[in-house]
Amino acid sequence: MNTHAAMPNLTGPGGGPYLRNAWYVAGWADELVADEPQAKVFLEEPVALFRDADGVAKAIGGRCPHRFAPLGRGRMADGILTCPYHGLGFDGSGTCVLNPHQGEAPPKVSVAAYPLVERYRLLWIWMGDAAKADPATIPDFAWLDDPRWEAVRGSVVAEGHFELYVDNILDLSHANFVHPALVANSFTLGERKFWQDGEKVFSRYTRPDDYLSEGISAMVGTTGRKQDFIGEVVWHAPGNLYFDFRVADPGTPYDQMTLLPSIHAFTPETAGTTHYLWATARDFALGDAEFSAIMRGALEFAFEHEDAPLIRDAHRLMKGQDFWDLRPLVLSGDGGGIRARRQLRRMIAAEQGRVLEDN
Amino acid sequence: MNTHAAMPNLTGPGGGPYLRNAWYVAGWADELVADEPQAKVFLEEPVALFRDADGVAKAIGGRCPHRFAPLGRGRMADGILTCPYHGLGFDGSGTCVLNPHQGEAPPKVSVAAYPLVERYRLLWIWMGDAAKADPATIPDFAWLDDPRWEAVRGSVVAEGHFELYVDNILDLSHANFVHPALVANSFTLGERKFWQDGEKVFSRYTRPDDYLSEGISAMVGTTGRKQDFIGEVVWHAPGNLYFDFRVADPGTPYDQMTLLPSIHAFTPETAGTTHYLWATARDFALGDAEFSAIMRGALEFAFEHEDAPLIRDAHRLMKGQDFWDLRPLVLSGDGGGIRARRQLRRMIAAEQGRVLEDN
Amino acid sequence: MNTHAAMPNLTGPGGGPYLRNAWYVAGWADELVADEPQAKVFLEEPVALFRDADGVAKAIGGRCPHRFAPLGRGRMADGILTCPYHGLGFDGSGTCVLNPHQGEAPPKVSVAAYPLVERYRLLWIWMGDAAKADPATIPDFAWLDDPRWEAVRGSVVAEGHFELYVDNILDLSHANFVHPALVANSFTLGERKFWQDGEKVFSRYTRPDDYLSEGISAMVGTTGRKQDFIGEVVWHAPGNLYFDFRVADPGTPYDQMTLLPSIHAFTPETAGTTHYLWATARDFALGDAEFSAIMRGALEFAFEHEDAPLIRDAHRLMKGQDFWDLRPLVLSGDGGGIRARRQLRRMIAAEQGRVLEDN
Repeated sequence: MNTHAAMPNLTGPGGGPYLRNAWYVAGWADELVADEPQAKVFLEEPVALFRDADGVAKAIGGRCPHRFAPLGRGRMADGILTCPYHGLGFDGSGTCVLNPHQGEAPPKVSVAAYPLVERYRLLWIWMGDAAKADPATIPDFAWLDDPRWEAVRGSVVAEGHFELYVDNILDLSHANFVHPALVANSFTLGERKFWQDGEKVFSRYTRPDDYLSEGISAMVGTTGRKQDFIGEVVWHAPGNLYFDFRVADPGTPYDQMTLLPSIHAFTPETAGTTHYLWATARDFALGDAEFSAIMRGALEFAFEHEDAPLIRDAHRLMKGQDFWDLRPLVLSGDGGGIRARRQLRRMIAAEQGRVLEDN
Repeated sequence: MNTHAAMPNLTGPGGGPYLRNAWYVAGWADELVADEPQAKVFLEEPVALFRDADGVAKAIGGRCPHRFAPLGRGRMADGILTCPYHGLGFDGSGTCVLNPHQGEAPPKVSVAAYPLVERYRLLWIWMGDAAKADPATIPDFAWLDDPRWEAVRGSVVAEGHFELYVDNILDLSHANFVHPALVANSFTLGERKFWQDGEKVFSRYTRPDDYLSEGISAMVGTTGRKQDFIGEVVWHAPGNLYFDFRVADPGTPYDQMTLLPSIHAFTPETAGTTHYLWATARDFALGDAEFSAIMRGALEFAFEHEDAPLIRDAHRLMKGQDFWDLRPLVLSGDGGGIRARRQLRRMIAAEQGRVLEDN
Repeated sequence: MNTHAAMPNLTGPGGGPYLRNAWYVAGWADELVADEPQAKVFLEEPVALFRDADGVAKAIGGRCPHRFAPLGRGRMADGILTCPYHGLGFDGSGTCVLNPHQGEAPPKVSVAAYPLVERYRLLWIWMGDAAKADPATIPDFAWLDDPRWEAVRGSVVAEGHFELYVDNILDLSHANFVHPALVANSFTLGERKFWQDGEKVFSRYTRPDDYLSEGISAMVGTTGRKQDFIGEVVWHAPGNLYFDFRVADPGTPYDQMTLLPSIHAFTPETAGTTHYLWATARDFALGDAEFSAIMRGALEFAFEHEDAPLIRDAHRLMKGQDFWDLRPLVLSGDGGGIRARRQLRRMIAAEQGRVLEDN
């Protein structure tokens, strides 16, 4: 237990309200190993993740009702998660089913049970009304689980409110400035289009017949040649983004372009910290470990060491104030982020039975 | 001065109210060396500890009334504690008796003087009304000062409210889960009894004719043999606990069992940090340095690296809320901790002239 | 960007009100290099510092109005400061003059422009009404820019409210206690005089015919000889201090004494942190790098490792309370600091159109 990181501090004003009836990414499925439960915090709530006796991933309330210890730091005993402090055992429904003391019956107590679905190599958690949790509404990231695709990936807890991270992906015009080694002019000079379709928000960048960055050119093997480029981001509320990145020799039909699909999933941990999970895949150079290592290193540097510190600083400079109260200047690149922020605000209001006068 | 740790931050909501008319452990007496004053914080109040010209340990208010420097970072001059900032000198009564400037008289000012008693190799401080400080009410830890006993010991500032640390010792049923290397089933399966006698609270664990853990068996030389076990904890308000640990071959009379006496003393530093001082003694293998080193290492690991991180996390998951407001589940092992919490609450109310409607 | 320190946290109660119509030191001029903008915080406001195409130092609001990124982390493009996040460009007047997206016009937006003057190798910033910024009121530190003087210097962000740092220099009686290696009795036993002249406050220490400390004696080459000593501190509101330190063989006329001039400039960063910039010069041993290294090391140790930790701890022990509310004891050495605190309070009240009933 002593080798675990400390639980985050949870006092102070919160970062919500949050959308509760929604699927959030809770982590990489294969990182949740049998007999190694995890203690995490989502939406400022402690959650314990574990695999039951059948290997099924479960998520239950992460604070023991007895003495408030982090259940996710406990041990597994026959598929039961036992509290690290006094050994009460909870099953995947959050019900206390084990009392190791004096042969007594388990107390009639339970912690929350969060619907948890393992899909596309990810764990998806529902932090709201379980009766409304429909796995069919989990956004499609099938390529993550498709052997034709090989992904590099990462996950990190990053400082900053999660909506700032969502904004970052929905406005890829930042890339030229934040990731100088990775991109060229496409995101700044290419045609941009933003739109909403149902609850989804889209950002599309199109730049035909121009040079890619040296880094991307080398990665897709087009160094020195102009390319067509189409990048499309899809936002699934509240914080799951798909990035469809396509390049090809000019004139290549859309479905024959080289595709690099990405996921950027943001789940709020606390008011000021965000679980950032990412992956980018390719359907070439499969099994090439050196290629993977270079690709992974470049992306990890971009997301965790270029984006994250900048968003951390913007978060700090916001001084805990509301985004809209700060009256942000709107640029042409904000069409995606602002649609998503407004959509999320509407969804939260609807969920809480509130009527928004503006928006 | 620059090598000292920084004073703790003392802003934010406090962790009290605290019982003021009570003896708290202020540290190990031999760690308060002549000419080396100490700056500590007890009950969110800065305190300066030093030895006067006669070597008598003294405790006075730790914040200079001039410019608020930590007096305990100062130097001794002829038994007078001088402020590290501008040199005002204070005697053991807290009276300013030295003004090094311009030959001027000392200003008519004083800081608090806290009754301080050196007993059982410990410093005992009284943070309340000095007129009520009766050294006869210091709980008996005579074995700490008895050459027939050899103790290993430690002290650390640990994160978490001090009552969580008290709870931990009064409910030893945690040991099977938190200290897997140290204990066996005795604390979980043995007979438990909790009671109160005056202001003291007792927890007793009895387990005849069973195997001890490998670690304890090795320590007391009973590897492979079943033993009788009796463990008794006595709580002295507000945070001083005696643990009487006895093992012996089955049927051995109580007073002939092998005894390992322990002290666990908890003194609040701030709302979220606790001075944790501990010692465990033996009356065998005296002078055996290797034995001591192994014993000390095992206990330090258990208290400082197994208990403390878990209590820190439970403290964080309580989010600054009141213990009772969180409606903790009560288990059969809580009979000691709950009696102590209620007794302490009554004593604080009585001290403040308040009437408790419940409790 | 990722190699930069994080922006400070700016939430919580502030440390003001601050005097806004005043010159604060913003840093060493030569540390603001072409093409390397800086992100700093003064008076709890983010500020971006950079040199324009003509090499002129500029200071503008440090938070981009678009998405709140720290402008001072951006890049220079033809003398224009571009935001590190989406590339909006701002000139030295704070006006947005560059929009790199889609060939669109720059948005009609601007950030604050702070008058900034480069003088005496320092950058002086005016955090208030630009119309009132008169460079003629910058205090005279011409020796910093005079080839007859060779200075050692430093700058650091130190914990503690900036007025505590001002107090420290205006009451040099602390030196005997905080800097034992550096000084002797002169500051404690010498004659003291404090007075105010207009908005300036003065502290003078005079000690004829006494031994200096070994350190100072060695520095000025008078080991083993008694010396006359005159030290005079001048406070320029709000936080810029000149220290005129003179020693000589007894009876030497004032203007023939060996002079070591110093600057101590304190600019609030946040409520609890202060930019501390210092320098001390000599007009002998010019070009002697070893002499400079020893002198610099001794002063850096004194200011950054003796003064700063003590002031940090005093700041913490004040628990965020107002200085006067804590009813500080007044000693004879406080004549400078108290005059400065009262004068600053009057100036702030006047600037805000408030009438002080006391003071």
